[in-house]
Amino acid sequence: MIPELGVCYYPEHWDEAMWAEDAARMVETGITWVRIAEFAWSRLEPVPGHFTFEWLDKAIGILAGHGLKVVMCTPTATPPRWMIDRYPDMLAVDGAGQPRTFGSRRHYCFSHLGYRAESVRIAQALGERYGRDPRIHAWQIDNEYGCHDTVISYSDHAKTAFQGWCAQRYGDIKTLNTAWGNVFWSIEYTDFDQIALPHLTVTQPNPAHELAFRRFSSDQVTAYNRAQAQALRHATDAPLIHNYMGRILEFDHFDVGADLDIASWDSYPIGFLSDRLDASEAHKAKYLQQGDPDMQAFHHDLYRSVGKGRWWVMEQQPGPVNWAPYNPAPLEGMVRLWTWEAIAHGAEVVSYFRWRQAPFAQEQMHAGLLTPQNIPAPGMTEAAQVAREIAQIGAITQKKADAALVFDYASDWSWTTLPQGADFTYFRLVLEAYKAMRRAGLTVDILPVTARSFDGYDVVLAPGLAQIPDSLTQTDSKVVLGPRTGTVTEELRIPTSDTSPLPQFSESLPPDHKRSVQDAGHVVHWQETWDVADSDQTIISDDAGKAVLFESDGQFRLAAWPDETLWDTILGQLIAAKPTGDLRVRTTQDHIFVINYTNEDQSYEGHKIKGCDLAIFKDGSRIL
Amino acid sequence: MIPELGVCYYPEHWDEAMWAEDAARMVETGITWVRIAEFAWSRLEPVPGHFTFEWLDKAIGILAGHGLKVVMCTPTATPPRWMIDRYPDMLAVDGAGQPRTFGSRRHYCFSHLGYRAESVRIAQALGERYGRDPRIHAWQIDNEYGCHDTVISYSDHAKTAFQGWCAQRYGDIKTLNTAWGNVFWSIEYTDFDQIALPHLTVTQPNPAHELAFRRFSSDQVTAYNRAQAQALRHATDAPLIHNYMGRILEFDHFDVGADLDIASWDSYPIGFLSDRLDASEAHKAKYLQQGDPDMQAFHHDLYRSVGKGRWWVMEQQPGPVNWAPYNPAPLEGMVRLWTWEAIAHGAEVVSYFRWRQAPFAQEQMHAGLLTPQNIPAPGMTEAAQVAREIAQIGAITQKKADAALVFDYASDWSWTTLPQGADFTYFRLVLEAYKAMRRAGLTVDILPVTARSFDGYDVVLAPGLAQIPDSLTQTDSKVVLGPRTGTVTEELRIPTSDTSPLPQFSESLPPDHKRSVQDAGHVVHWQETWDVADSDQTIISDDAGKAVLFESDGQFRLAAWPDETLWDTILGQLIAAKPTGDLRVRTTQDHIFVINYTNEDQSYEGHKIKGCDLAIFKDGSRIL
Amino acid sequence: MIPELGVCYYPEHWDEAMWAEDAARMVETGITWVRIAEFAWSRLEPVPGHFTFEWLDKAIGILAGHGLKVVMCTPTATPPRWMIDRYPDMLAVDGAGQPRTFGSRRHYCFSHLGYRAESVRIAQALGERYGRDPRIHAWQIDNEYGCHDTVISYSDHAKTAFQGWCAQRYGDIKTLNTAWGNVFWSIEYTDFDQIALPHLTVTQPNPAHELAFRRFSSDQVTAYNRAQAQALRHATDAPLIHNYMGRILEFDHFDVGADLDIASWDSYPIGFLSDRLDASEAHKAKYLQQGDPDMQAFHHDLYRSVGKGRWWVMEQQPGPVNWAPYNPAPLEGMVRLWTWEAIAHGAEVVSYFRWRQAPFAQEQMHAGLLTPQNIPAPGMTEAAQVAREIAQIGAITQKKADAALVFDYASDWSWTTLPQGADFTYFRLVLEAYKAMRRAGLTVDILPVTARSFDGYDVVLAPGLAQIPDSLTQTDSKVVLGPRTGTVTEELRIPTSDTSPLPQFSESLPPDHKRSVQDAGHVVHWQETWDVADSDQTIISDDAGKAVLFESDGQFRLAAWPDETLWDTILGQLIAAKPTGDLRVRTTQDHIFVINYTNEDQSYEGHKIKGCDLAIFKDGSRIL
Ligand SMILES: [Zn+2]
Ligand SMILES: [Zn+2]
Ligand SMILES: [Zn+2]
Repeated sequence: MIPELGVCYYPEHWDEAMWAEDAARMVETGITWVRIAEFAWSRLEPVPGHFTFEWLDKAIGILAGHGLKVVMCTPTATPPRWMIDRYPDMLAVDGAGQPRTFGSRRHYCFSHLGYRAESVRIAQALGERYGRDPRIHAWQIDNEYGCHDTVISYSDHAKTAFQGWCAQRYGDIKTLNTAWGNVFWSIEYTDFDQIALPHLTVTQPNPAHELAFRRFSSDQVTAYNRAQAQALRHATDAPLIHNYMGRILEFDHFDVGADLDIASWDSYPIGFLSDRLDASEAHKAKYLQQGDPDMQAFHHDLYRSVGKGRWWVMEQQPGPVNWAPYNPAPLEGMVRLWTWEAIAHGAEVVSYFRWRQAPFAQEQMHAGLLTPQNIPAPGMTEAAQVAREIAQIGAITQKKADAALVFDYASDWSWTTLPQGADFTYFRLVLEAYKAMRRAGLTVDILPVTARSFDGYDVVLAPGLAQIPDSLTQTDSKVVLGPRTGTVTEELRIPTSDTSPLPQFSESLPPDHKRSVQDAGHVVHWQETWDVADSDQTIISDDAGKAVLFESDGQFRLAAWPDETLWDTILGQLIAAKPTGDLRVRTTQDHIFVINYTNEDQSYEGHKIKGCDLAIFKDGSRIL
Repeated sequence: MIPELGVCYYPEHWDEAMWAEDAARMVETGITWVRIAEFAWSRLEPVPGHFTFEWLDKAIGILAGHGLKVVMCTPTATPPRWMIDRYPDMLAVDGAGQPRTFGSRRHYCFSHLGYRAESVRIAQALGERYGRDPRIHAWQIDNEYGCHDTVISYSDHAKTAFQGWCAQRYGDIKTLNTAWGNVFWSIEYTDFDQIALPHLTVTQPNPAHELAFRRFSSDQVTAYNRAQAQALRHATDAPLIHNYMGRILEFDHFDVGADLDIASWDSYPIGFLSDRLDASEAHKAKYLQQGDPDMQAFHHDLYRSVGKGRWWVMEQQPGPVNWAPYNPAPLEGMVRLWTWEAIAHGAEVVSYFRWRQAPFAQEQMHAGLLTPQNIPAPGMTEAAQVAREIAQIGAITQKKADAALVFDYASDWSWTTLPQGADFTYFRLVLEAYKAMRRAGLTVDILPVTARSFDGYDVVLAPGLAQIPDSLTQTDSKVVLGPRTGTVTEELRIPTSDTSPLPQFSESLPPDHKRSVQDAGHVVHWQETWDVADSDQTIISDDAGKAVLFESDGQFRLAAWPDETLWDTILGQLIAAKPTGDLRVRTTQDHIFVINYTNEDQSYEGHKIKGCDLAIFKDGSRIL
Repeated sequence: MIPELGVCYYPEHWDEAMWAEDAARMVETGITWVRIAEFAWSRLEPVPGHFTFEWLDKAIGILAGHGLKVVMCTPTATPPRWMIDRYPDMLAVDGAGQPRTFGSRRHYCFSHLGYRAESVRIAQALGERYGRDPRIHAWQIDNEYGCHDTVISYSDHAKTAFQGWCAQRYGDIKTLNTAWGNVFWSIEYTDFDQIALPHLTVTQPNPAHELAFRRFSSDQVTAYNRAQAQALRHATDAPLIHNYMGRILEFDHFDVGADLDIASWDSYPIGFLSDRLDASEAHKAKYLQQGDPDMQAFHHDLYRSVGKGRWWVMEQQPGPVNWAPYNPAPLEGMVRLWTWEAIAHGAEVVSYFRWRQAPFAQEQMHAGLLTPQNIPAPGMTEAAQVAREIAQIGAITQKKADAALVFDYASDWSWTTLPQGADFTYFRLVLEAYKAMRRAGLTVDILPVTARSFDGYDVVLAPGLAQIPDSLTQTDSKVVLGPRTGTVTEELRIPTSDTSPLPQFSESLPPDHKRSVQDAGHVVHWQETWDVADSDQTIISDDAGKAVLFESDGQFRLAAWPDETLWDTILGQLIAAKPTGDLRVRTTQDHIFVINYTNEDQSYEGHKIKGCDLAIFKDGSRIL
């Protein structure tokens, strides 16, 4: 597959007179895809039922006329003002019970069936007009589900739907009471319609209640997306895509992805470092203008899995953004590096957000490839360079990775509901495991808990996985379970069957409390105390003699949260690691990509790789 | 008195088939008391008016059949779901005006008279059935009043009741206006029904208004508890108990205690260190897995006073809990140490919470004496050891302490309302005084401001006491007043009568601002400037020459908040201190208890006391 | 002009029997002005329509009888309780949608026309009775507009008024849509009555929407004040004053000031250091008991401008206050120093708040010149000393300053709405520029953006000014624009006309990220990258070679936020600085004032100036 470049474009933001020149410059830059109509509902249907597609027809004509392939969007992330008049109760409700009002975007509750029907209606209308149009090569549904904390809604619509969901899942109310352990504090219900949403309680609600509500909330996103997908399936054969946002965990992306053809995500390395990375201040300072060296790769590998092999970067940061607490500029070379890194992980398309910086509204300080004055911004030059380099490098083919990591959304919901320690964060735990694998030189596949097989890997890590699937205990791969893996049931209870091995007890530890593991690192955040059987083999113990890593029945159990050094020790024990220092290495069928996120020269097998630069090797030779 | 051990048990959480074995194991462990039915309302009255006592009868039969003494509880901390249908307005309302909903516990407003009547009704029903049952040896009313911030409620019921309370207290509205100084910002009322609850105002409401509301809120708890106590008095002669929670200050425990026979409290040393101790990070790290060395003792001494000599630990932490920000395990020996420390301070019973860890609901990560798999947890072994040791040591008799400390709930409310410095915290001030007394080797009585006499002590400390009772100025004990003592009236005004000695002015100091006191420590947080009369004697001055401790008319005035070193200096000046370093010493009629909260060996008069261990001396010999 | 002293007095707080002695002591202290009736509405009109002026007549009689000049206040900051019965919807509404209730002060929404009419009515009633009374020498309207965040209100009254304001400003809804760029996220309106207030949205509302609402909110304050001012104009010829509070930025003081005769402000140096100064902990520790050495001077210069030359300190801190997080006492000499500093900057009157500390209500811990026991507090002595010194020094005449600084409220609203970096704070930026000018020995004028001319200054700084007025580009003064100056339009868009020079891109930087500027300091918080033309002259570059200060078309462009050292470097390049170290120097027609805010001796041209002391020079000789 030869990767391609794209760009996000909003013709409705600009004078028609500019469209042709814009299209010409896109082509000149080496861009082949253009995404449009994402937020344009007020221009497509300014009055309910009255469509004004003419301007869009014209824009498509100009763009496609220059040879660009169009990604058409359903504009459902931005319902227009008249929709609120029609459905005043369509707004989501926050945890404090306040409606989240009109005036920005994503102002809808996933449980509102009236708005869901409207979303289907606009998707149908677009499908009817453009579904068979050969200039439209792909469709995007909505934009960034879950962004701005929009999955969870405490609306009355959500409450009614949740009660029905419970009735469906549990059949009768006694089953629910038993499953949740409602006897605990006399919370037993006699009817499904007594079940409120789990907020505003005096102290913590029943975690089983909370987890059920999170499962339900995720299911509502899936159902909402499916409704649009089904509408479009009737109208088009082009692939359907959603653009997920980084580190959004409130809905199951694998579930949504099952109804779509391609997964895509929006990659903002510097924004994410600022606003959603758990890391030390020193680490954040080191990578302030580059982004974390594993955060993007993690998402690339995740969405390759969500997309069943097919995935894009739908929005690529091209310069400073506007929405993080602090917004420095990427160092020179980083836009190119990010693009190449996505390609190394299998991206079919990397699409920059956005063509030209808007001089108005919320994102006016968000860079584009062009400035508001229509002057090329630094990102433009780097995009053009990548386009030239792609032409030079040619096709890239993915292969099965050395190692695998299990990632499970419901596990995140479980530990968010029952953290036991104030900073126990599933995403952080998994990302730290991923980082350790990358430091060990491994190329990684990320797999859902529902993967049919985990066979054929050097090692499979499954930290913090709420339940252990049989496929994971019956694989030929070396499997590492823990910390916390398999310690709760799907109903968020401690398993009491004999077959579930469990620690004697678990401890959460405050941030500054580190427990030494014999010069091999430290236990941080979390430690379990296991009764290690005589038949088991302890591989690593802490200074107090507690088993930190042990083998039992052919599986490895990690009984603690390791710091960086301890992770390296652990992987060193399990596999033949090839430590890469500050570099990151990804191997495909024919190429080796070596990426330098630091701002200093690094050396890789005798080759110098400059700061913010990468090398590509093929057949033992450096070809870039 | 020979102390005993108990345990908290929830038969309704377990299969009936397990009850007999549980009872047998309790007895085997050396446990003699078992508390039941605390949260079982939904099982005792699943439908309004329809009681199902049969299961409880059976549980009592089994437990008592094994020789255990039963503590019966009224389950009013967990009103069942149907109660909310009956009284939708029974929920408390938070400071933002939001009802605090059903779904956890303590979901009731103390001012709701309908729910109060229901509480009396269930207490009566239980009293009728079990009041004269000789197997029931004591009663617990409700559970942990005030836990989860549940004393203060801004409901309409609270508002109406507060207006009535004001009418009762002040008689006519002009008296209230004058008492509160409402002229200040034209807040004068013309009718009691104009008085709102003091929240959601533009800036601080009148502190007199806020203090009155806090007095009222405390009175509502007392009235609520009294209603249940009166109902049970008719039905039983067994002692009535409430289990107070650590560091709950929003109601006057002495007032509630006056209607009961025994005070008890729930002691969670490691949880409290994490979530409600004011201390440095270094101190918290040192005692992370032991708890603060004075926090428990303080509460023991407090509840001995609240219980007029009779008190229990109703819930004793047996392992890691689930509700603190971080939940590490107790170090080996600590469960035993905590139990012995309570006994040293006069506990009649120490009862572990809970028998077996629940595998479901909110507290599933809270350790019990048994794991959910029914395997003994570490706490079990230590409890059994204490039982054997009690048998060996025999009776322990309390005696009047060397020194006294005055503790007053209304003072806390006064300074919370009028802190003047962002971190001025009455509890912290008093606990630091208590710590200083303990470091000086003193055995301490804690007394309410209403104590008839303060006579017969080497020293009586009264820091931060809002008003000074006559009994405190007319005692033969050495009394230390201050800082801030006697500087406001009951209506939270500065006293203007000539007889109230007052500082010229007072200063609150930011955390890092310390004022040196001539190599004898520092003033922190608070300093007063007094016009020391010629007839007074200045004992300690700061480097700027200001009196920090002086004697006036035979009383000592402490004009500042001392740091640890300065406290030691001050007590060294006033009494013959016997500094105990990191050890804590408590003297009873015949025994000396020496407690080592550190994790290292300590030495006491030539005896080595290991980390997390204690020694008991009798007639000069170590007997444990 | 010979400066005078005043005091704030509340006769209604005290027994009538005390008034005469109070007046006599005021006069004895050297006080000539007394402000009364500020919060007395409940005593002036206890029942709607029923006025009780008799007590006030009597108080005026006694005060004026002792020779004091009276400042009469309208008591509209404290509407009495019956007003709420009349207009339950007059309360302001906070950002969460909660009414801000009765029980403290400032409990009104500026958009409520019913309350506005009531305010006019009480002003008229006072005007009728006292407007021509020769004992009343000035009037104060309301108290501290905007204190306690009271400018912005999300009430329904505000919403309706805002819709009308928008209709007025934009004429038709399409113009508004275009101006705001509402197409961006399909936020286009079809009617003005669809426009909600910009709060509770899912993510950030349109910044143009937010800025419009802030402009509107400021206009409401102006209109409210104007209504009272007009009512009083008919009744009196005495000057009208408002007492602004320090660092209140939510309304345009120049707009309000245009309707008044004298500007005054309430100066609480130690309170402000604690609660509203952006500075390092070390700086705050150094000046803990003195206040920041520039914060007061900045406000003095600002209000001299707002008052078109005539200004007072209406409330001067006399000792510890009650409302800051921590409230230490001023060091000896500071009350005198603050008073003299105000005089140096041109204050006609410095009036202490308050005469006697109230022993009740919210501010009972706020010092007065007398303690509640009627004993002179330390501030009293210093006030008396200033009175004697004024008599000795005689008249002081202001002159045009060396340098000017542009200050613009709408710029603050713009950057608050669109900060781009979490700590980008306009006030801080401007105050740091002011501090740099003062460190360079400059006497400074603060000018509004509407100033007719900026001519005749050595240098004019305009940091963070949202738009650049023509008068600023057409002056004979050296003008420094930036950072961020002129980078947005009045509708908060990026200017796209060719004539607006703009950076290529801008970066916000996290607090610990500093960029070195060749041993001359650092760039912090903000940096712009400009395409410096060949015809421009780069004066200072950072280590990476980026222009930090450059000259273009005769104007200086500052492309970054400088730290203290870099500011000093910059000013050193532009003017002949006379660095004053820790001292501050202000030059008037005939005098030089040298102020020492430190607690240590400093030296000025061979003269020793003690800590917390000042020197006054005239004709080269030290006269104080
Ligand atoms: Zn996006
Ligand atoms: Zn409890
Ligand atoms: Zn004031």
